[in-house]
Order: sequence, then structure tokens, then C-alpha cells
Amino acid sequence: MSRTLVIAAGQLGPVARKEKRSSVVSRMTSLMETAADRNADLVVFPELALTTFFPRWYMEDQAEIDAFFETEMPSEETLPLFDAARRLGLAFSFGFAEKTVDDNGETRRFNTSLLVAPDGAILLKYRKIHLPGHRENETWRPFQHLEKRYFETGDLGFPVAEALGGRVGMCICNDRRWPETFRMLGLQKAELVLLGYNTPVHYPPAPEHDHLQDFHNHLSMQAGAYQNGTWVVGVAKAGCEEGCDLIGGTCIIAPTGEIVARCSTLGDELITAVCNLDRCREIQDNIFDFAQHRQPRHYGLLVT
Amino acid sequence: MSRTLVIAAGQLGPVARKEKRSSVVSRMTSLMETAADRNADLVVFPELALTTFFPRWYMEDQAEIDAFFETEMPSEETLPLFDAARRLGLAFSFGFAEKTVDDNGETRRFNTSLLVAPDGAILLKYRKIHLPGHRENETWRPFQHLEKRYFETGDLGFPVAEALGGRVGMCICNDRRWPETFRMLGLQKAELVLLGYNTPVHYPPAPEHDHLQDFHNHLSMQAGAYQNGTWVVGVAKAGCEEGCDLIGGTCIIAPTGEIVARCSTLGDELITAVCNLDRCREIQDNIFDFAQHRQPRHYGLLVT
Repeated sequence: MSRTLVIAAGQLGPVARKEKRSSVVSRMTSLMETAADRNADLVVFPELALTTFFPRWYMEDQAEIDAFFETEMPSEETLPLFDAARRLGLAFSFGFAEKTVDDNGETRRFNTSLLVAPDGAILLKYRKIHLPGHRENETWRPFQHLEKRYFETGDLGFPVAEALGGRVGMCICNDRRWPETFRMLGLQKAELVLLGYNTPVHYPPAPEHDHLQDFHNHLSMQAGAYQNGTWVVGVAKAGCEEGCDLIGGTCIIAPTGEIVARCSTLGDELITAVCNLDRCREIQDNIFDFAQHRQPRHYGLLVT
Repeated sequence: MSRTLVIAAGQLGPVARKEKRSSVVSRMTSLMETAADRNADLVVFPELALTTFFPRWYMEDQAEIDAFFETEMPSEETLPLFDAARRLGLAFSFGFAEKTVDDNGETRRFNTSLLVAPDGAILLKYRKIHLPGHRENETWRPFQHLEKRYFETGDLGFPVAEALGGRVGMCICNDRRWPETFRMLGLQKAELVLLGYNTPVHYPPAPEHDHLQDFHNHLSMQAGAYQNGTWVVGVAKAGCEEGCDLIGGTCIIAPTGEIVARCSTLGDELITAVCNLDRCREIQDNIFDFAQHRQPRHYGLLVT
């Protein structure tokens, strides 16, 4: 398989609370059509792409919460994504709320992303580890961020798969702020990291930083790319969603840390870049040659 | 002690191979005078401040190498720095090549930095852990980078001291590119990280990145500041030194990752910023509240 991919980032504008999955899926397949027109090999969609960002509401009725979760993938409503991928010869990744039953019969809920091959095969699955926000209803906030309540911490580690001609990892939203995330993927020689996010402009605990949200988003992803010599595709759900402004800034970042493509709207928008995975070597074999230069025996605190 | 410090970064222009320590010390004390005029509490100087960046030359004669090392601190030649600090009421930090004899009578050589109180007390000592470059003479290079030959890996870990009214850590040059460095300091609740660097514009193993040196310098330091909620003072030895161009870009970075002061020359230059250490809380108590949000049980690879 070629080591040079055309990668598309499919930013989504806001998804209303009442918007049906079929409508969102239709918006996503429309972006997939555009990606295919540009000869893309892969389209990356945001975190929790199929619904509104529901952790902004405190809900007590588990049935109401569960309505935002998927219990099968593909489902009848999401099958058109898989069909489009097959028809267009495109891989795609996207995030969704996953409700599953484990081997012990326990119901588990995760903030999950999948990488799917054109033929529908699941190439990689990731469950979000760095859940932000809080567990209880904090009524002083203009909106909630209840990921710690509605999801449990991912239990799959930070997997990296041989896929699409290279080594691919994923992370989700708040994971990208943590250098540990990118390093865990980098130590497994990831060459491409796919991630989606829903990031409010307003951060209630420290609103004095609201004007820095775009800067912090790019700073974290660019540093993660450079310090691990990996391509990064970061994709937003953007715009004013149910009265909550979400940042955009969807971008594709080279292993040098340079942003090589970037959205310029807060709506549904597709960008592409030609990504040569061999360029990772420029960084991984030199300044960040881990075997030569890391000093893990001095890093003990990192795992305590 | 006040939690709001006026911090000065004392960038140095090139130091010639033949330039005497007394001359460099005079340039440094001149910057200290300027800092005192601006009511600074602390001046931060670069890595290996007292001499030219000698690892660019392959030398076989240990006496020739040792001529770049300090065997006592202060020495007769460096005492004027300590005298100036006392007279001006200024703390200062600087880097130097340290040759010492350990408890077993073995000679040891480190790339070291010190933080010195106005009264001459050593507040903090650090020995560089991430030594870049190579061990053997690589004649294909236009200049060498023999830190791995001339120094051994630092043996003091990443210490953080209660000093100057806050918690202070240090690192040196290539350390700043490694998120592990800042995280080791951040986990000890550092509020101020002092660092100096000698960074050639030309990187022989990957010259296609030469134009990105300033970007990578700031990207690494800004990410380290933001992701740990600490002030960072990064200070260059800059300019064309013995035919080798060194980047400048000396800057003071807020815990938000914002550059709040920056040099605009490649010569001796002093910049200052008012640094309120309490601002670290905005980050350390919120988005990067480690106790709330880190997931160290998922970070096993980081120490292997």
C-alpha cells in the first residue's frame, strides 16, 4: 500500500439536540462524497459525531442518557456511512457514545472512536482515557461537562494498528492536551494520529482563558505531532450548538508540527492534505530518536 | 516573600573560542546592572554561559577539553557574578561545564546549571539529563555536537526547590524538547522553570528542518508551560559563534503558554516580565489538575 495518503478532515457544524442521527449521517456522507471527489483515502470525523454533545446537560433518567448511545455499530441509522465508504473506496474514523455489555453481563459506557476500512472492517477501536469535566451536577455552570459521569475511563489503553499503509493511533478530545497520550502512541511508532473534539469556547472554571482556546488546541496538537514525529488530524464539531459555542480549528499537522491544512469556518467543511508517512522518519530517526535520547530511568514520577 | 517577581532573561550573543571568562563575566554583570535598573529579582542566563559552545569541536586532548570546565564555583573568574548579585540584590541562574571529583575519587563531568541567591547561596543545582548529539567524531558534519562525549548524563534527577517565593525547577537546552522534562517538574508543582540553550540553526542530520528551529524552540517551551501551568524562562546564547549560527528567541512564557516577553536581537540583550506565580493555579487547579485528570496506570510504556 502507498505510504502517501490523501487525508481528509471532515469538520461538522453544530448538531441540534433534536437532530436525528439519519440527518447527521447524511451530512457525513455528503462530506465523504466531497472527499472522494478529491481522491482522499481517509476521512476523519469528530468525537461523538452522531449526536449533539450531550454531556452538557445533567440528566437523571438513564433512558434519556442512553438515547445518545449506540448499542451496535453499524446500526440501521449508521449503516449508510459504511455503505458510502464501500462505494467510494474510503476509510473513515468517527466518534460515538458506546453502550455495550461485557463478558460478565455488565453494561459499560465509553466515549469511543473507530477507524473503519472501505470494506467495513474495524481497523482500530479506542475508548477515551482522559475524560474531562466532573461527575455531579454543578448548577453554577452555564452548562455542564459531565463526561466523568456518563462515561467510564477507556479500558483499551492507547492502541496503535498497522493500517492504511502505516501505523495509526487515535485519541479523543481532552486526550490531546496530555503529552502522555501522544508519547504512548509515539513509543509504539505511530505515524498518524486521528482525533476528534467538542471543545467549548467558554471554560467555566477559568473563563479568563476563553480567548486562548484555539491557541491551546493547536499548541497541544502541534507539540504532540513534533515531539513524536507523527501526522496528526484533529477534527472539530464546531459552531454554536444548543447555545454553546464550540471552537473549530480543524487541521492536519505534519510530523514537523506545521499545520498544513486548516478549516476556516465553524460549519460542515472538508479539508485535505497529502500526507507522506515516510516523513515521520525525519523526526523519529533524528532529534526524537527515542532509543538514543530518552532517559526513562529518570521518569519514575510519570507513572505514580 | 512576594509571589510576584520581576524576572529578567539575559540573552548572550556569541562567545568566541578565545574570549576569556573574565570578558564573558563582565558582559553578564553588565546585564545584571541593567536588570537591577529594571527592579528585577532574578536574571536567567544561558547554558554553558561562560565559554564558547565547545562541543562543536572534536578534541582528543583531555586537557584541552578540560579548559572549558569549571572545577570550583565561584572561582576567581566567576566571583564577580556573585559579587554583583550581592551588591544588586539579585538572584541569578546560569549554565557551565562542571568538572568534579565524586566521593569515590572519580572525575565526573556534567552540563550543569545553578540558581544562586543574592547572598551567594546555591538554591538549586541541575545536571542535564537529555544530552543531544553523538559520541564519536563525525567528519561529514560541518560542525560536531559532542555532548554525549564530553558530558555524562545528569545524576540529580529533575529537582524542584522552594526558592524565590515559589517552586523552581531547571532544565537545559535539549531537555526542553522532551515533554517528560516539564512533566517531571510539573508533578512536583514547579511554578517557574529556568532554562538556557545553545541551539544551532543548522541541524546536520535533517537540514530540511533548519527553517523551523525557532518554531520548534517556542513550540516545545510553550507546550511545556501550558501543559504544566508553569512560568518558563528560556534563554539563548545566540548569533554567529565561531562560524556557527545559533538561534535567539529568548523569551518569558506565562503558565497559559503565552510568550509575554521576547528578545529581538541575536546579541547581548535583557528582557523582563512581571511574573505572578499565583497565576499557575489557573492551570494547575483546573484543566491540568493532575490528581483529577491524569491516568498514570495507562502510562506504563513511558518508563520502559
